[in-house]
Formats: sequence, C-alpha cells, structure tokens
Amino acid sequence: MPVTEYLHQNREKSVAELNELLRIPSVSAKSEHRADTAAAAEWLATRMRDIGLTTVDVIPTAGHPVVLGEWRGAAGAPTLLVYGHYDVQPPEPLDEWKSPPFEPTVRDGKLFARGSVDDKGQVYLHLKAVEAHLKTNGSLPVNVVFCIEGEEEVGSPHLAEFLTANAARLKCDAVMISDTTMFAPGLPSITIGLRGLAYMEVRVQGPSTDLHSGAYGGAVVNPANALARILAQLHDAHGRVTVPGFYDRVQPIADQEKRTIAGLPFQEETLREEVGAPKLGGEAGYSPLERLWVRPTLDVNGLLSGYTGEGAKTVLPAKAMAKVSMRLVPDQDYKEIERAFTGYVQSLAPEGVTVEVEALHGGQPWYAAPSGPVFEAARRALAKGFGREPVTIREGGSIPIVKAFEDTLHAPVVLIGFGLPGENAHAPNEWMSLDNFHRGAEAIAALYDELR
Amino acid sequence: MPVTEYLHQNREKSVAELNELLRIPSVSAKSEHRADTAAAAEWLATRMRDIGLTTVDVIPTAGHPVVLGEWRGAAGAPTLLVYGHYDVQPPEPLDEWKSPPFEPTVRDGKLFARGSVDDKGQVYLHLKAVEAHLKTNGSLPVNVVFCIEGEEEVGSPHLAEFLTANAARLKCDAVMISDTTMFAPGLPSITIGLRGLAYMEVRVQGPSTDLHSGAYGGAVVNPANALARILAQLHDAHGRVTVPGFYDRVQPIADQEKRTIAGLPFQEETLREEVGAPKLGGEAGYSPLERLWVRPTLDVNGLLSGYTGEGAKTVLPAKAMAKVSMRLVPDQDYKEIERAFTGYVQSLAPEGVTVEVEALHGGQPWYAAPSGPVFEAARRALAKGFGREPVTIREGGSIPIVKAFEDTLHAPVVLIGFGLPGENAHAPNEWMSLDNFHRGAEAIAALYDELR
Repeated sequence: MPVTEYLHQNREKSVAELNELLRIPSVSAKSEHRADTAAAAEWLATRMRDIGLTTVDVIPTAGHPVVLGEWRGAAGAPTLLVYGHYDVQPPEPLDEWKSPPFEPTVRDGKLFARGSVDDKGQVYLHLKAVEAHLKTNGSLPVNVVFCIEGEEEVGSPHLAEFLTANAARLKCDAVMISDTTMFAPGLPSITIGLRGLAYMEVRVQGPSTDLHSGAYGGAVVNPANALARILAQLHDAHGRVTVPGFYDRVQPIADQEKRTIAGLPFQEETLREEVGAPKLGGEAGYSPLERLWVRPTLDVNGLLSGYTGEGAKTVLPAKAMAKVSMRLVPDQDYKEIERAFTGYVQSLAPEGVTVEVEALHGGQPWYAAPSGPVFEAARRALAKGFGREPVTIREGGSIPIVKAFEDTLHAPVVLIGFGLPGENAHAPNEWMSLDNFHRGAEAIAALYDELR
Repeated sequence: MPVTEYLHQNREKSVAELNELLRIPSVSAKSEHRADTAAAAEWLATRMRDIGLTTVDVIPTAGHPVVLGEWRGAAGAPTLLVYGHYDVQPPEPLDEWKSPPFEPTVRDGKLFARGSVDDKGQVYLHLKAVEAHLKTNGSLPVNVVFCIEGEEEVGSPHLAEFLTANAARLKCDAVMISDTTMFAPGLPSITIGLRGLAYMEVRVQGPSTDLHSGAYGGAVVNPANALARILAQLHDAHGRVTVPGFYDRVQPIADQEKRTIAGLPFQEETLREEVGAPKLGGEAGYSPLERLWVRPTLDVNGLLSGYTGEGAKTVLPAKAMAKVSMRLVPDQDYKEIERAFTGYVQSLAPEGVTVEVEALHGGQPWYAAPSGPVFEAARRALAKGFGREPVTIREGGSIPIVKAFEDTLHAPVVLIGFGLPGENAHAPNEWMSLDNFHRGAEAIAALYDELR
C-alpha cells in the first residue's frame, strides 16, 4: 500500500489520536499544569515508540522536559530534525470559547481546541508521516530526529542550553519547523524570513517628585513633554526611522522577492478591516507586505507618566517612561541597533531632565535564501500534498529559536507552516484546518522521498 | 486698652482656642468625618457669638454647612467680607507625621497640625482681630461678615450657588481671603494674580484592538507614536506654546511689576534644589518667577498607552491618551483656549488614527491691580503688623472661588496670606508660624482702622 493511501485510510484514526493529545491541558505557564505537561510529553514518547522510532527519551530540563525520538536506519541518507512543541498557551478567557478549550470539537472542517494549530496538530502530522512510511515500507527514506519541547510558549528558556548539551545526538542536515501559517487557504507556503527585535525602555526624569503643575508649571522642564519630543524625533516625515546608521545594513528587496510579494493574493483593504484602523500607513515607497516583512520599523509599545485616572489632576510628573521596540531585517544587528538607539536618544535629551535607556530584549533577524536541496525538496513535496506550487513568504514577527538551531546545529532551517490566517493561536477558539492537517501529513511524507 | 495690647496679652489664650478647633478632624472628603465637619462649624459659630457678632447662622448646603457671622453696627462705614474654610485635607499618610495631625504641637515657633495654616489658623486670626476691637472698644470701625465654608478642600461644589442664593445678606465692599502664603518669612505679601486653567484630555485611537507589533508593526499607524508627534508640536524651539492664537490676549508684564518681581528675594538655585531637577527651563526670555506668574504654560499631566509593566511586551497599542493642561494668564479666556487647543490638536492628527479631545476642567485667570482704597488700607495695615512694607506677588496656581466672589458679589477681592513657603499644606507635618498668626491678627485689626 502506498504511503499516501495509508494516510488517507487512517484519517479518522489520526484525528482521534490527536484529540487524545489535545485533551491534555499542557499549559506551560502555569505550575498547576505541571503534571499535564509531563503527561503530554509521555503521551508523545509512547506514540513515537508505537510508530517505530528506535530511540525515544523524555529528557528533563530545569523546566519542562524535551521529547527526543530518533530513527536513523537510512545509512548514508540525510538526517532531518523536526522541532515543535507540546505545550500550549493558557486558554483564558474561558467564557469566550464556543466549545471547551480541552474538548476538541469539529465545526465546518475546523478542529477547535487549545493547541490544535499551535503546535500539537502541526507536530502530530509529522509523526503520522513517519508512521505511514514505517508501517507501509518498514523503513524511512531519510533519517529523522524529533525534538519536541514543552516551554515554547514561555520563551524556550532552556532550549538553547539543551541544544548545546545534546548537539551530538541532534546532528542533522536540516531542521524543519511547522509552527507558522500559510499565506491563504489552499496556498502552501515556505517562510524564508523573520524580523529581529531590539526592545528598549526610555526613562526620563525631571524633578525629584511629582509637583503641582500650577505652582511649578512653566519653570520646570516637564519630563512627559520631553519624552514626547524625543519620541517624535525617531521618525522623519516619510515614516523612516532617524536613528543614525539604522538602515546601513538593511538589504534592499531583491527584484525576484518584490515580484513574489506583489503576486500574492493580498488586498490592502482586507488588512485594514482586519486591524480596524481608519487607514493603513507606514514608510513611504513600500507596499504593506513589504513594510511588514522586509523593512525595519520602530513602534512605541507603551507610555506612562503622571496621572492617568479619571478626570483632572494637576500634576507636573517627576518622570515619564516609554517602551520602544524596533523590528529588524537582515543584515541589521540588534546589538548595534541597541547602541545606536541609546546614543541617539541620549543626544535628543533636553537640558533639565536626565534620560536613561535600557535594552530589555533583543534577537537577530533571519533569512534563508529560497534555494538548495532541502528547499527544493520541500517545494516539490508541498506541491504534491496541496496540488499547487508553494509560495515563499516572510513573517513580521520573530521566532528566536530559529537562530539558535542554525547557530548550534549548523544546519539550514526550513519553516513550513500549516496554520491559516485567523486560526486564533493564543486567543479563544483556536482551530486547525483538518484539510491542512491531512494534506500536511501527505506533503511531509512526500518530502522524505524527495530528500532521499 | 489699645487693640494691639489686647491681642498681645491674649496670645496664649488665642492659641489654646485655635488648638480646640485644630483638634476637630473636619476632613470634608470623607463621609466618616461628617459629624466632625459639623462640629467644627458649630464650634466656629459659638466662638463668633462669644466675641460679639450679632447674627450668626450655620447654614446647611447639599454638602457641608456654611458658617455666616455678621456685625453691621458701623452705619455708613464700608463692609468687609472675610471668606475662609474650616474643612481640612485628609491627614494621610499618618506615619509620616512627627506629631499626630489632630494633636496640635508647637516646635520651633511652628504650630504643627492638619489645618493649622490651611485654613483654620488663617481664619481664626480674623476672628481674634474682630474680638480685640469689640472687647476693647465695644465696636468695630467697619462692618464685617464672615463666610466660612466646609468644602474648599473638595472643590467648593456648593459655594457659587450659596453666594447667589445669599447675595443680599453677603453684600459688601470688599472680600478678603487669607488662604495663601507670604513670599518669605517676615515679608508680608498681597497676592494680586492667579493663573487660570484649561485641562484637556487627548485620546488617539488607531487599530480597534491591541495588535502584535511583529505581525503588524510598520503597516499600521501607531497611536502612541502619533500622540508623541502631536504633543511634540505643542511647543516651539523657544518653549512657546504653538496653539494658534494662544498669546493673542496675554497681557505683557507691566514695567512696574517686572521691577517688583526682579526685586523679590529669589534665588534660581534655591528653586532648582527645591524641585530636584538637574536644571530649570521654560519659555525663552523670561525669568523663573515670570514664567510661573505672568506667562501661560502647557504641561502634559499624564500619558498612558500599551504595555507599561515590567519587561518587554510586543504590543502595537490600539490607543494612547494624554492629559494636557494649560495655565492661563489675563486676559486669556479658558473657553477660547479650549476651542483653539481642540482645533489645533485635531489638525495635527495624522491619517490612520482618530483623535478625540475633551475639556475636563477650566477656570479663568485672575488679576487685581495693586491700587484702590482697600489695597492701600491692606498695604498700610500689613506694614504696621509686620514692620515692613508688603510686596505684591502672584501665584502660578488657581483659586477658582476668587472669580466666583468677584462675579457674584461685584466686590474687589484682596488676597492676604499668612502662610509661608514649606508649610506643608496638603502634606504631612503641616504647620503655621505662630509669629505670623499673632502678627496677622494685629495686621487685620489695623486694617479695620485703615478702612474706616
């Protein structure tokens, strides 16, 4: 029986198995779910053994364990490492769920449950692809290693350390991650870029305590006014960031990618409606998708000063604070950007206040050229699974662990997502398309053949 | 026995009486002190009867009562209305008081108690001045009406209505208020100006909900960035307010007042140390006291947007809010300024966000030319009481009730304060200088003679 036929015949059983995993509330952020995260890890390990992986271990970390499963019977063939996570976001607010978050329910071809698409469903379709090969052929065309962690939703605090400590066992030729979304229903997508991040806090201090704005207003430099002036100077009139050197390392968009982006089924009005703003905006000279994917940006994430309650309080605040983050693109370096931002903001500080700048969080941008044997194999496999040539896309956000895999394992990373826009990851009523779950498993099964 | 001699001999007794009043915790803001505010009103009424006022009433309002006391035996002589308040600020935080707030304690010539200077001590010295005249001469050289309210510390919500309803009974030739401070110890001061206020809230709305700054940053106009740009455009590089027409009605400083201000014992460095800022600032071309007293200003009083907790959260905020207040000087009109501000801020709103502006609170500036018979009488009386020519000063803050008296009773208002800098009104360890209490009573007793 061909592999595809096996997957087709087992569709109902596959969903029933996934539902067992979805019923385990493996919320990594909450200590009361510690037994549940452990149970989810054990469930995955048991399934890995059942389908025929040869070495399966649940390896403890300082936090939740990592499940490692290996099949290395294809001597001389490449090795593919599949990374994913079995932990889920907290389900709250509960009363906004149409069906309970840990009782998987199908409506309209969508499997509703916390973790369905992020990331249990996307992990399990890889297991099913392996199972289909092993049950029908008794072997896989390539070597496969699963590395499924339990702390992705809390920032993967122990994963980099784990990768370093287990680098020999994790040795591979490519890393595959299915934790992203397709650009549109029916349109398979390979994510080739992620933006980096430099997240800063700016603190302006004026007088030593809050003052009465009547008694002192006019003779004391107001830190909230000063902060507003600083922030206003971080963009020019064309929406470009004015931090010196900010664009020095920014790679221009390749003509090929510009054409690819322009050819995607995207309507500006649909995005505008989705965000509910009166109009979209951004850096002059770029389309919305270019602004989101290939251009760096600077956003105020938070502002706080003085009196913010109801009504009027005539306070001249002692201090004002802003959180400001910059999304970065290749080849910007977040450490360089942090330094440039700090120096520039300090240079904008008026007399009469002191300004402190602190870097809170940072990560490098990531880009993988859409070429090479693994990319080509993925492209062909997705075309088989979905009956349509895949597109290459980027994401505006950051997935810091991608760089950690590249840097520690020295292998290329391929991001193939089977989520869909509007899938409510991290929100109530999360769902995964069952069609994507099944087609995804078929595409991954085909990928093993393509990689041989 | 001369009036001054009577006051001198009764100094200890006067303080003992004032202490009785200070022991009553007449906190108007707290309903559990309702009986106390009533008791303070009754105590005052009893004292007024004791010293010989002919008509004394405790008149209920929708809030705390007003104590009215009259002596109108000086046919043909002018009538002086004394306004003050018997309610006090809450004493909290209690643990910062060196002696309990409602147990009056003398240290170093200062009478420490909540309400000592604001305003019970300043009210009671007027009663002592009247008593001195009535006990020594059996009569007053002028007619006197006391109007002492119990809601000043909660914004005098019922006083304007009370003045209108009782205008006939309150008819007078001048209103005297002792609820301000002298410029320096030993330097009697007449306050001739107060700034007005236009207090606004600016609300900027971008997307309909908070967005992920990675997924959407760069293509959506950020309301916090937009707010910063709006606020930054409210001043020019010289610290002048850019709201169109803002300065149209501002009266230039008279040469005489400029000289008066320049002659006051003021050190810029002392003010800088007091506020604890690295440097003072403000509108170019004016001294600190000019900036505080005779120039209008614009201050951000509060800022709020997005994530303001610890650490990093990559939110693109749906909205951003600022509270902005302008201190006004004669002849600015707060209603005009509210309209000009609203129109200007709306004109600064970039595409991609909507901006709402709301006026929260307003009051007119006030100025009384330092001339006329009442001012001259006060000047001579203060010189007698303190042995030194008084100075004319202004305050940067607002006392809205001053305009209400002028407008309702059509009489000039004279502000003679006996407080001192650092007296901690509204703060723990409030005190009044006993020397000012006694000299103040003597000055007011002399004022009655001067007004005859």
